[in-house]
Amino acid sequence: MKKAYIISTGNELLSGATRDSNAEFLTIRLMDLGIQITGKSTVGDDQQNLIRSFATAIESSDLVISTGGLGPTFDDLTKTVACKMMECDMELRREEEQKLRDYFANRHRPMPEINLRQAMFPAEAVVLKNVNGTAPGMYLNKNGKILVLLPGPPREMTPMFLNVVEPLLINDFAIKNTSVIKKTIKTLGLGESQVEEKLGELINTPPDVSMALLANDGEVHIKLLLAADSGASNPLDRMEKLSAAIEAKLGKDVFGLDDETLVTKTARLLLERQSTLAAAESCTGGLLGKMLTDLPGSSNYFWGGVISYSNTAKQLFLGVSETTLAQHGAVSPETAQEMAEGLRVRSATTYALSITGIAGPEGGSQEKPVGLVYIALAYEGGCQIRELRLGLPDRDFIRILSAKSALDLLRRHLEYNQLVAEDNV
Amino acid sequence: MKKAYIISTGNELLSGATRDSNAEFLTIRLMDLGIQITGKSTVGDDQQNLIRSFATAIESSDLVISTGGLGPTFDDLTKTVACKMMECDMELRREEEQKLRDYFANRHRPMPEINLRQAMFPAEAVVLKNVNGTAPGMYLNKNGKILVLLPGPPREMTPMFLNVVEPLLINDFAIKNTSVIKKTIKTLGLGESQVEEKLGELINTPPDVSMALLANDGEVHIKLLLAADSGASNPLDRMEKLSAAIEAKLGKDVFGLDDETLVTKTARLLLERQSTLAAAESCTGGLLGKMLTDLPGSSNYFWGGVISYSNTAKQLFLGVSETTLAQHGAVSPETAQEMAEGLRVRSATTYALSITGIAGPEGGSQEKPVGLVYIALAYEGGCQIRELRLGLPDRDFIRILSAKSALDLLRRHLEYNQLVAEDNV
Repeated sequence: MKKAYIISTGNELLSGATRDSNAEFLTIRLMDLGIQITGKSTVGDDQQNLIRSFATAIESSDLVISTGGLGPTFDDLTKTVACKMMECDMELRREEEQKLRDYFANRHRPMPEINLRQAMFPAEAVVLKNVNGTAPGMYLNKNGKILVLLPGPPREMTPMFLNVVEPLLINDFAIKNTSVIKKTIKTLGLGESQVEEKLGELINTPPDVSMALLANDGEVHIKLLLAADSGASNPLDRMEKLSAAIEAKLGKDVFGLDDETLVTKTARLLLERQSTLAAAESCTGGLLGKMLTDLPGSSNYFWGGVISYSNTAKQLFLGVSETTLAQHGAVSPETAQEMAEGLRVRSATTYALSITGIAGPEGGSQEKPVGLVYIALAYEGGCQIRELRLGLPDRDFIRILSAKSALDLLRRHLEYNQLVAEDNV
Repeated sequence: MKKAYIISTGNELLSGATRDSNAEFLTIRLMDLGIQITGKSTVGDDQQNLIRSFATAIESSDLVISTGGLGPTFDDLTKTVACKMMECDMELRREEEQKLRDYFANRHRPMPEINLRQAMFPAEAVVLKNVNGTAPGMYLNKNGKILVLLPGPPREMTPMFLNVVEPLLINDFAIKNTSVIKKTIKTLGLGESQVEEKLGELINTPPDVSMALLANDGEVHIKLLLAADSGASNPLDRMEKLSAAIEAKLGKDVFGLDDETLVTKTARLLLERQSTLAAAESCTGGLLGKMLTDLPGSSNYFWGGVISYSNTAKQLFLGVSETTLAQHGAVSPETAQEMAEGLRVRSATTYALSITGIAGPEGGSQEKPVGLVYIALAYEGGCQIRELRLGLPDRDFIRILSAKSALDLLRRHLEYNQLVAEDNV
């Protein structure tokens, strides 16, 4: 198994205020490639510490990846140090020099000669284009060691790694199949920091297990990777135990594992309970219905519904009263409740979900801002209503999260049969 | 401007029966990068012809890209010829050899020694991993010329080009901004070969213009690229004329240009005519409503609608008669018509669209196979109905194309105000 060492540089990482998302991202990608992480270090902009880190890294690993420290300022020493450690001579790359000169010329500013450092690379290195910034990266394969230097900003680092570094690594390491045991625990309803807090001590995984939290369209996934050939006995068993401990900490916020999605999980629960569902959608405009019917066989539990985009549609098909609309508005808990209950009565389904909100970018007010959404679940003898305040003013995100939250309201009800009294708003 | 030459190899391309989609794909990508195509050639598996093609290509261009001819059989000569022309010595790459031996070992078959050719590469070359097949590609930058050898099957060639070759080209050619004039003409309702047929002579563009037909989720886009610095006078004017000629040939099947989508176009037409729309969806389950409401401000013309996934929903909210459902079935022109007309009357909108069909993979029969879909447009004084037979048995594709076709039925009506008599089924 090939071994990797990750070095994150930059004083800002040492303060603890900045999360090192680069190292998390790289850990996951490398583990996915079947490359074992033997060490990680975070170093400030200090030459001696950089030398020590790179010495350790080069000695202990087949692959050293660093992020940060590629800019032109005096503090940015990474490339100089790393290339010296790999015993490379630096040469000026004409194309890189030209790019720099163009960059400054376009901004009508003189180029400080110190910036030429950015155009210096070992002769053996592949220079990696930075599509979202100026500082290029570097890929060097020398004497059986691979050194990769990447910029610090995630939006510059990520495409560089995915588009060029990963294919080169697969090639140079002749990576075929990997023997990694993977487990993904999926949650909805918690932010990344809340998941972290709930996990507590569990966040400190054993050395041969990697854990990463991945935010994914409103969901947070806890991804676990365990190298199957790391020498541990019973790796499958260990993974099961770790996963169970995490699920116990996160409780009802976990909706599924691995390939399960919120839709497949909810669909399975509906089928098991021989229940049916109808949906009344305002701001999501059919998205929830689309998600439900993406799944073949959905007619076994999905009755259909109403896209009540206009108030007339709400009144005509769902029986929302004119008074409710006039007094509380279309985006209100009262309207959400009448939508769900009205549809459930008409469709004679076991459950009805409703969604009404302001997806933006227009239509918000001080009192009812963009991102305010009400969802409701009507069932025999009751109705649960939830208010969502989705901070990000992005129409797509608000709509997706609204549809998922409505589904999740039903999933929790089906899975835990929550008491009505406990959960009513 | 960097110059490229594309060589397509394989006897099957000479017969005319196989379309050279690789060359089309590469043309578009290279033009997008601002690289001018100076020539293309198609060669059979013939050594002398290959030598002539590569000689011309290397002499006339900075970049030579070939597709095909990387397999192990005797006919596959491309790599041997190309590397000889670049004056490279071949060496056996151990990792590639191992991959080949593993491949045969996994299949419990002895490896013919001839296959070792696949593991021979010039020392200077980057070997390109093939994620969807066995024959690796090759990238060589030598003496100011770049040679790229790619496999023939598009699903092997495409990811290799996009993931590795393009970043390397951007890097080695120091590509910044490109000065290319682009134009895209978008159609729905025609297949690629029908578009080709309609274009007739126009398919033979002038040497500095590239044209490619791109199939895109049921749409066919005609993409034109003209190098702005190719020396032509008035390039913008030339592009306009060419585009107008193409639009004239394709007529009503053109729904938009460049960034316009079927949804934005239809929305614009509805707004201009101060018209409103409602939608009744069965097999699309809300997808059409979702597409319409993806656009901010859609409440100005979209009233809402019904997801009539079950027959009960069709009867309850749309007034589809029990007799119609019993006699003709839920997937029938009669049901489509009653859905659209029933919704239009209830919603009091200018237009109502309906969709009913079999999205599969289950639920098809000899008489009504998966992919049979009826769409209808109800308007003041009439109703248009269309039968779609969507060959591909893929649920997602059938649903997307059904929703788009329904929208396009409305778009054509709005744009050309077609006579009822002419268009009724």
